[in-house]
Amino acid sequence: MDDSPEDVELTLHVLRHNKLSNAIHVAEDGKEALDYLFCRGQHAARSIDDRPRLILLDLKLPKVDGLDVLKAIRADDRTATIPIVILTSSKEQRDLLRSYQSGANAFIQKPVDFAQFQLAIKEIGLFWLVVNEPPPNSAML
Amino acid sequence: MDDSPEDVELTLHVLRHNKLSNAIHVAEDGKEALDYLFCRGQHAARSIDDRPRLILLDLKLPKVDGLDVLKAIRADDRTATIPIVILTSSKEQRDLLRSYQSGANAFIQKPVDFAQFQLAIKEIGLFWLVVNEPPPNSAML
Repeated sequence: MDDSPEDVELTLHVLRHNKLSNAIHVAEDGKEALDYLFCRGQHAARSIDDRPRLILLDLKLPKVDGLDVLKAIRADDRTATIPIVILTSSKEQRDLLRSYQSGANAFIQKPVDFAQFQLAIKEIGLFWLVVNEPPPNSAML
Repeated sequence: MDDSPEDVELTLHVLRHNKLSNAIHVAEDGKEALDYLFCRGQHAARSIDDRPRLILLDLKLPKVDGLDVLKAIRADDRTATIPIVILTSSKEQRDLLRSYQSGANAFIQKPVDFAQFQLAIKEIGLFWLVVNEPPPNSAML
């Protein structure tokens, strides 16, 4: 969920290049992100049990702010444990603190340098999509 | 915090080999882990503001169980946002779910294969000690 087309394009490129992703959904704004996750509106046909393994979330999103998206995901038992990595250009210490306090699993400040950005995305993919064990769907236990 | 000397040794070796750690404290059991973090007992001389950048936590610990250590860290404002990665041999889906529900940032099932274990530790180090931005100390904002 990111409103910078260039950053979205680069992120997708690096994940695909490293064979780290089969299915990626890119939400255009905070409202669409929540519609997707909670299967509303244009995403009403989705199943909420089909949970993403990872959510990459920018803080500065149109319509619904990233921190509010984060809080909405954490407030619902059906989505509360989905790993969320904040990926943002914000350098504000308050954004960093609020993200962790609101339940973000990790926080990455987008590197301005191209090679560093590539490396960060690759490491996000390796850790979260390969090494980490995602939470089970509690409804299925 | 792990009670298997072989796993502790290997973890330290990989982190050091990849230059991913300057200061590592290994707690012998859950009680010592909490004494360290909250500066009690033999660790009374520490400052609680000197927070670890990452806590690697096993679930099966002597004296105080790993999940109880996790909950105690999350329950105190001074330590609530410190990143905690569960690293355990448990294959129990309930341990996985409870860990995330109790506020673990990530969960890794210890690979039995030696090379896979090395890779997992290396990726933990790269993501959490290089790419991730740790939470600021809220008392200092």
